[in-house]
Amino acid sequence: MIVKQLSERHPDGARFAELRRATPGISQKMLSQTLQRLVADGLVDREVTPSTPPAVRYRLTSLGLSLDGPLSVVRAWAEEHMREIDDHRRSTAD
Amino acid sequence: MIVKQLSERHPDGARFAELRRATPGISQKMLSQTLQRLVADGLVDREVTPSTPPAVRYRLTSLGLSLDGPLSVVRAWAEEHMREIDDHRRSTAD
Repeated sequence: MIVKQLSERHPDGARFAELRRATPGISQKMLSQTLQRLVADGLVDREVTPSTPPAVRYRLTSLGLSLDGPLSVVRAWAEEHMREIDDHRRSTAD
Repeated sequence: MIVKQLSERHPDGARFAELRRATPGISQKMLSQTLQRLVADGLVDREVTPSTPPAVRYRLTSLGLSLDGPLSVVRAWAEEHMREIDDHRRSTAD
């Protein structure tokens, strides 16, 4: 979801708070860990502008951008079949 | 990986032990939890033959089979870029 957000809505990068608002239900800790992993993997750049206070922006690298296409194929599948999966979960939970 | 195994190598289903052998490094607990989730989501059928001892086979449903295509796109991306990601992880861990 973060890769999609950065790719579609924030091609020039986004601040932590913007990403959090754009990803309903994500906790601060989960977003922080996700961004750390994306940065460590080279999918996202963390840019610090030395202002007061320092401004931090997250932006997809070209590697991260190249993942958006493959992920969107899985997202489309998930959106198409989410209902079916939910129905199955409910029917077996009874 | 389990979806790929079932799709490519075991179209007629596989026993737990076969899947475990085919997935190096996976623990019994992790494989068991993964299969439970796939069954709950309706992606995998768990078929029990009432022999002594009972024989249990796992097989992709048509929904599970339809996920293999989308997942293979992400797998291909990961295989193509794994080296680049590993290099980046190593360089930032220093």
